[in-house]
Formats: sequence, structure tokens, C-alpha cells
Amino acid sequence: MTTNIQIVLANHPEGWAQESDFKLIESDMPAAASGDLLIENHWLSVDPYMRGRMSTAKSYAPGVEIGEVMVGGTVGRVIESQNPNFNVGDFVVGRTGWQLYALSTGEELTKISSDTVPYSTYLGVCGMPGATASIGLLEHCTPKAGETVLVSAASGAVGSVVGQLAKLQECRVVGIAGGSRKCNYAVEELGYDACVDYKAGNLADALRKSCPEGVDCYFENVGGEVMDAALSVLNPFSRVALCGLISEYNSTDPYGIKMMKSVLVNRVNIRGFIVTDHLDLYRKAIDQLVPWVAEGKIKYHETVTEGLENAPAAFISMMKGKNLGKQVVKLK
Amino acid sequence: MTTNIQIVLANHPEGWAQESDFKLIESDMPAAASGDLLIENHWLSVDPYMRGRMSTAKSYAPGVEIGEVMVGGTVGRVIESQNPNFNVGDFVVGRTGWQLYALSTGEELTKISSDTVPYSTYLGVCGMPGATASIGLLEHCTPKAGETVLVSAASGAVGSVVGQLAKLQECRVVGIAGGSRKCNYAVEELGYDACVDYKAGNLADALRKSCPEGVDCYFENVGGEVMDAALSVLNPFSRVALCGLISEYNSTDPYGIKMMKSVLVNRVNIRGFIVTDHLDLYRKAIDQLVPWVAEGKIKYHETVTEGLENAPAAFISMMKGKNLGKQVVKLK
Repeated sequence: MTTNIQIVLANHPEGWAQESDFKLIESDMPAAASGDLLIENHWLSVDPYMRGRMSTAKSYAPGVEIGEVMVGGTVGRVIESQNPNFNVGDFVVGRTGWQLYALSTGEELTKISSDTVPYSTYLGVCGMPGATASIGLLEHCTPKAGETVLVSAASGAVGSVVGQLAKLQECRVVGIAGGSRKCNYAVEELGYDACVDYKAGNLADALRKSCPEGVDCYFENVGGEVMDAALSVLNPFSRVALCGLISEYNSTDPYGIKMMKSVLVNRVNIRGFIVTDHLDLYRKAIDQLVPWVAEGKIKYHETVTEGLENAPAAFISMMKGKNLGKQVVKLK
Repeated sequence: MTTNIQIVLANHPEGWAQESDFKLIESDMPAAASGDLLIENHWLSVDPYMRGRMSTAKSYAPGVEIGEVMVGGTVGRVIESQNPNFNVGDFVVGRTGWQLYALSTGEELTKISSDTVPYSTYLGVCGMPGATASIGLLEHCTPKAGETVLVSAASGAVGSVVGQLAKLQECRVVGIAGGSRKCNYAVEELGYDACVDYKAGNLADALRKSCPEGVDCYFENVGGEVMDAALSVLNPFSRVALCGLISEYNSTDPYGIKMMKSVLVNRVNIRGFIVTDHLDLYRKAIDQLVPWVAEGKIKYHETVTEGLENAPAAFISMMKGKNLGKQVVKLK
């Protein structure tokens, strides 16, 4: 009998997550009961939000308990079906977690095809991160042609899509990223007009130089000092989509934002949002992104780690910003 | 010939404003040229925003230069008119500054009557602070019946109107104020369901007790630690109207807001706003407030200081929270 391999939560981390916070376990292969299907997972997504699920702090979704399989987006192939809506051989994207095989009722699965874009992209540019970028930028920031859009984590899974969508809106687009490799990628491959390396210091001054007309839309993935610097260059009536605060997720002592006065004086609208609150917009975003990716209008880069056993290391590396573009784990 | 008395800016203060930052000067009485009118001011408003105008920091409105008359809202009587739209004896509300007599083209003046409400209220509950309360609460916070509305500076010129308008919307209304006198006034006179004294310590815990169902709308006048505590009790999809940050205005080292994560996790919408951006809504708000004040549906309290020469002391006292309700200066 085939054995299933799963990665479960071993500890609720304090500060940075470590490999010892995860545990690899073997279990019997599940069998599909009536109505269920059995999926062989081919791709696993690792994303910043997972750090929140590893914590006991109250959040918008329940956390993972010790011993539970880690939550996560997956692409897999149906290998057994007791559900009339799915056939063996169908590829599906869903949230079946950090495991090689998963049972599902099929309820939260979407059938996908690799005819136009590769399967892995349904975890990135054509998946949750892409939809996050689209909804945050187009629905919350509502950029107009000629405006300046600033994007933190500019080369990441979400930011890279935000920047390119903002260029399609005919905006001036400025990124913030860590290190020259990411900044060069943002400008040369993704088409950003400029990208500021926050590791080079004097971020607020550098932003003022790169955004001579100020910032009308700010897409925030990072928080902390990066956010403070960005708030200092906002224009009157600017909009901030607060999508993530990755700089805070591993912090036991959160950074204090000093620039709230800019929010008042500039009549800024800051909106925190979670992509899964907007399922109608989510589907609309994906339907738009798939052809754009197929046509090359939206580019993407993946950092691929091989093997479920390496998923914890891939997650930790991504949290430290070592990936370029979308971090995925290839399971098969 | 009558002498005019004016108060001009003597210094741009660092930190708290002091009486020495103001200077009283005497000047010749102005004369109305064609199209102008001459106003004898009866009431002067002192408000927190004036601290920003005394500063050289960039803001939404130009600052007062050294030697210039301090800006401010006034109620006065027309004593000379070369303008067909105004007659001698008309009472007007406008922004003619810290002086006994002022010339005006009439452009930004509104004629008022004391038939229904006293003249001084056009600087408070029926003026800029009242309109600020109305627009911030009704347009930005959009409270629904049964929701919890939290108001900082709950007994102040703006907050006292916010709280009462929220009660008219059938909300549970909780205030934050400094000291038991203000808290008692908020509950007993203004009708707040509860009021928390931030000077008593443990503000976040006290707010959790006073807001057992969390907070859906937060009307922010204060900033700093008060804002951090308030952000910690926000509900999912709550709205924050950022109207003022009085705790920051005299600070040379702004407090850092640590609770941005609550804005993300709870998908909060924070909106900075300035009442004068919304002149259509401003007029609508005043038209609604005047009859409500006349009928006693909206109550108010004024702290009255006598004499223009005491305006700096009144302003400083108000900035330190020593007033109850609206601080005004009686000039005549």
C-alpha cells in the first residue's frame, strides 16, 4: 500500500519559524469514500500568510493546531473519484495542504488545464497571489493613468503582478525591494520605471528622488520601516492597499509607525484586505490574468524547491526574502 | 480713531506652543474699500488644527508666517459695508482671524441669526467642529444601528457631536476622555453608553470591557497610544475616521503605532479627512445640526474665555485638554 507523507505543525513559533517547528510524518494512504476524490499533489505553494496560521494569535482565519497538517494551496491530479463532477486525470487547484495525497469533497477545488499556462502558475500569477494583486490594485487603489504607484516587495509573488498591472493602467510604477538583483529584475524584466533597494539605507530620501511627483497609490506587502518611509511620500487623496506586513510576522516587538500624520494631512485612505473576502472578484481576476500570462503581457518568475521534505526550508527562505518571484515546491 | 488689536505669530513653536509664541499688536482701524465690509468680531474660535498652522511643516493648508495675524474662525457684526450683499448689523461667521476688527470681501462669510441658536455655536456645534463630526461619522464611518462606535476626545468640540449623532443612529457609543469630569459629562449629559478614562491606565483592557462586542466605527481625534489601544479592539470590516491627532501636534518625537496588523487582519478602512474638502456636505451638516441644537436633540457645552488678549492662554489650555466642550474666546 502506498504511504502518504504529510508535514504537520510541531510548534507554534516565537519570532522566526524554524525547521523544527514542522514535522514530517508518514501515514496510510487515504481512500475515497462516496462523494470524495483522492488527489495526488504535484505542486505546493508557500506564502507569507502561513506564518499567521502557525501562530496562536487571533486572525482572520483559524490557526493550525499542533499535529495538524499545514494549510496551503496545491495543484494536483485526481487519481480516484467517487464524485461525479471529477474524473481520474483531472488537474485541480485547491487548498489541500502540505501532503502528497489528499482527500477532498471537491467543494473548494477548481479544475485547471495546462493548455495555456503551466500548472504551477495557478499557485502564483494565475492564483491567489495574482488575484490579490489585481483586487488590491484595481479595486482598492483605483490608479488612474499618469498617477504614481508604489509597490513594496516589488518583485515578489504579489508585487510583481501589481507592478505590471499598474503599467497596463499607464501609471508611473516604482518598486521597493531588497537588494540589487531584485531591483534589476523589477526594472528590466517586469517593466518598473524605478526600483529602490531598501537595504541601501535612506529609503525615504530615495523614494522622494524616485517619485518626484509623490505617490498616489501604495500597495503594501511589508510594513514597518518600509511603510513609514512610503507614508512620508504620499500625495493628497492617495490610496493605500494594505495587503501584507511580512516584516512584522516574525517580530515579537512590532515596529511603531510614526507617519500617521501623513495619513491625516493627506486625507489618505488605507484599506486592509484579504483576497478571499472577494470570491467574485477573485474569479474575475484569474479569468483576466490567465490570457495575459499566456500572451506574455504579464511576466512571472518562480523559485522552485523540489520535494515535500524541503517545504519547511522553502517557506523559511521565502520569509527571509531569498526567493525571486513566486516560491513553490514541486512534489512530483 | 479706534485702534485695532491683533494677535500675530511671534515664533514657530517647537513642541508645546507657549504664550511667547504669540504677540499682541495694535494697528490702525482698517477702512472698507469698495466691495469690502468691516467686521467687529464678537467671538473667536480656538481649535487644535491651529497648532499645525503655527508650524513650518508641510500640511494641507499654508502655515502662518511670523508677524502674520493668526488664522481662526470668527463670528462678528458688520459695522461698515461697501458690499451690496451685506448690511450694517448683519452677523456673519467666517475665518477673519485673531483680531477685533477685520476687513472682508464677503466671499467666505455666511450670514447667521441668533433666532434659533446662539451666535457662539456657529464656531462649535453648528460650525466647523459640528460639520467635522457629522461628515466623519456619517460619510466615512457609516455606522449602522446596533453597531459599536468608539470616539476619542469624546467630550471635546468634535467628539461630543460625534457621540450624540451616533446615538441618533441607534449605535452603542463608547467614549475615551481624560479624567472623570469629562467621562461623567460624556455619559450623563451627552448620553454615551460608557466612557473610558485614558488617564486611568490599561486603556486597551478597559476598552475591551466597555466594548464587549468590539468596535465597528472609530472616530479618531487623538492618535498615539489612544489610537493603538483603539485599533486593538476593532472588529472585522470596521471603519476609522482619522480626524485629528492632537496627542502628536506638540510632539517632537511622534509615537509609533504598533497595531497596523489589526488593520490588515480586520480589513479595516482608515480614512484621513479634512472637513473643508467637503463644502457641499459641510453646508448640509450645518443645516441639519442647527434645528437639532435648537430642539435640544444635540447638546453642547462651551468653555468661554474673555478677551482677545487671553486667546493664546485659551488656545494652550485647550491643547492641554483643560476645556470641557468647545473652547471659544468672547471678544465683545
